[in-house]
Amino acid sequence: MKIADLDTPALLIDLDLVEANIQRWQTYCDTHAIRNRPHVKTHKLPTLAWKQVRAGAAGVTCQKLGEAEAMAAAGISDILLPYNIVGPHKLERLQQLHRCCSLSVSADSETVLQGLSTAMRAESHPLPVLIECDTGMRRCGVQTPEEAFQLARITAHLPGLRFAGLLTYPTGPTTAAFFDATVTLCRSTGLDVATLSGGGTPQMWSAHQAAGITEHRAGTYIYHDRMTVAAGAATIDDCALSLLTTVVSRPAPDRAVIDGGSKTFSSDSFGLDGYGAILNYPQATLVRLSEEHGVVDTSALSRAPRIGEQLRIVPNHACVVSNLHNQAYAVRGDTVEAIWPIASRGAVQ
Amino acid sequence: MKIADLDTPALLIDLDLVEANIQRWQTYCDTHAIRNRPHVKTHKLPTLAWKQVRAGAAGVTCQKLGEAEAMAAAGISDILLPYNIVGPHKLERLQQLHRCCSLSVSADSETVLQGLSTAMRAESHPLPVLIECDTGMRRCGVQTPEEAFQLARITAHLPGLRFAGLLTYPTGPTTAAFFDATVTLCRSTGLDVATLSGGGTPQMWSAHQAAGITEHRAGTYIYHDRMTVAAGAATIDDCALSLLTTVVSRPAPDRAVIDGGSKTFSSDSFGLDGYGAILNYPQATLVRLSEEHGVVDTSALSRAPRIGEQLRIVPNHACVVSNLHNQAYAVRGDTVEAIWPIASRGAVQ
Repeated sequence: MKIADLDTPALLIDLDLVEANIQRWQTYCDTHAIRNRPHVKTHKLPTLAWKQVRAGAAGVTCQKLGEAEAMAAAGISDILLPYNIVGPHKLERLQQLHRCCSLSVSADSETVLQGLSTAMRAESHPLPVLIECDTGMRRCGVQTPEEAFQLARITAHLPGLRFAGLLTYPTGPTTAAFFDATVTLCRSTGLDVATLSGGGTPQMWSAHQAAGITEHRAGTYIYHDRMTVAAGAATIDDCALSLLTTVVSRPAPDRAVIDGGSKTFSSDSFGLDGYGAILNYPQATLVRLSEEHGVVDTSALSRAPRIGEQLRIVPNHACVVSNLHNQAYAVRGDTVEAIWPIASRGAVQ
Repeated sequence: MKIADLDTPALLIDLDLVEANIQRWQTYCDTHAIRNRPHVKTHKLPTLAWKQVRAGAAGVTCQKLGEAEAMAAAGISDILLPYNIVGPHKLERLQQLHRCCSLSVSADSETVLQGLSTAMRAESHPLPVLIECDTGMRRCGVQTPEEAFQLARITAHLPGLRFAGLLTYPTGPTTAAFFDATVTLCRSTGLDVATLSGGGTPQMWSAHQAAGITEHRAGTYIYHDRMTVAAGAATIDDCALSLLTTVVSRPAPDRAVIDGGSKTFSSDSFGLDGYGAILNYPQATLVRLSEEHGVVDTSALSRAPRIGEQLRIVPNHACVVSNLHNQAYAVRGDTVEAIWPIASRGAVQ
């Protein structure tokens, strides 16, 4: 099957670019002796997780239990879930997952640690826990090295748990100092800090500059998107994920309408100009989305696309786009090589 | 099962409010002799489409073929698909759908009409087509009454098609004049304009003021959301759709983090303050979303929610939220009455 034969909107993954992106980042990690633990929230595809692991990744990162369950079911054996697991439903699922793969999690409060310990105390081996540190994101994470140290101590003493290190997202200018201060406190009481885990694709190429980081979690790098291009982490030619759409209306000379909207691209804008980069009409702009329509400003084009013509568009944010589609088409050149169902989308966390 | 027993994030539908919203709007349509053709893109649930039809709706509106196929499969017999159907894959599916229900579509160009005619010319009965008019939205639709008239004439002469009327979205200040001018042109050549179809929830209660409108397509009214509340079409107490989430982190005194982000709520903001109305903490604001985290500003609260506590949140935009979830929980009071799989999400159009 050829790309031109696909019905639209269709999610395309360019395998040549995916493989180049995986290899380039793995080489960087190897060069700088940083453990590579790619984040699968971006693709939600076991087959791509395996490509990452086969290329040298130490394991994967998942953002919710449903993703971790899908990866474990596909045989991925080393999974980090950097999320506070709370409540009886999720703790029971975590227990089951812990029995079938090498699982680790993060926590940022004693409440979360107590829940994990209660769930894990009767297990045959302890659950490794990293303490999440807020080094600038203002989302989850303890606020000070002293708090991190206190939680590390609590973790080390709680049955069923093992203190495994520190974690933050994203790696930022203050990360190294925060981690360093916490490590000093831990070592003063003989507590070993095995892993210092940072993350993020926009800042991936400077991961080695954050002194002491042992592991990096990048997600978007496998595809790249307009956001990571804007951040300077890639060029538009590296972007492996695109949406194939069809022009369904040319109501005015300066306007074309495509069959993809916010339910296809998401509304994530990141302050960028429009909602996608139209690869075959780079001078046109996807200026507006409603749910199933995208409005393209064609005023800068000498020849506007006709009704029925396909437009191939790199989205602003690859991770949320994967989550909107039931399946993806893996392509090389103009040939469709495989159709992959996307795992764990829409599932409870 | 009680709501408190659900794992999160969970999509909740309050059935008492849904039934009240359906009835209130049906009564309005009956009072003003407007045909009610609710848009199912909001809920994607055949069982709710049936509630709307049983309450008096003439049929339903779908925004993509996949939705129409799901509704026809559930026995809904009168379906309008106000979309330009383009390309061989979709025209074949349209043909099949036309054979199993009373189907109508819209078109805004001769190219689209020719495609429809080619697909339908051998069928036993013609496909009704409404001409889509742009009366202010600047999305699809012909730009002038003269263009609409020309396409109406072409439709009336094309084999396999029947000219059924005019359609616009949303009904706006210039809709009545646009439709009126087109009807005058059509009637001057003996062409009957059976249906004048308007749409939109924000403006639904003034649908009768657009002279001549025979039908209205509203979607969000079945649930309402922060956007339709902001537009004055409902109050927050009418909002039937909500997200049940759990607090997973309290990293700072003024901040709580919940287990729902842009993959749960979408990033649709509509210029509103935050991403949802927290029903059980109305003074708190859902200020920021990442993919699986929501950051809540709790600084205005005298008592902030604790880790493990559930927050119930009305989203900004119900339609895109439905599209993000595999299933919805139908509730009355605090009891879960049913679990409904959401149809045709993520499918090709």
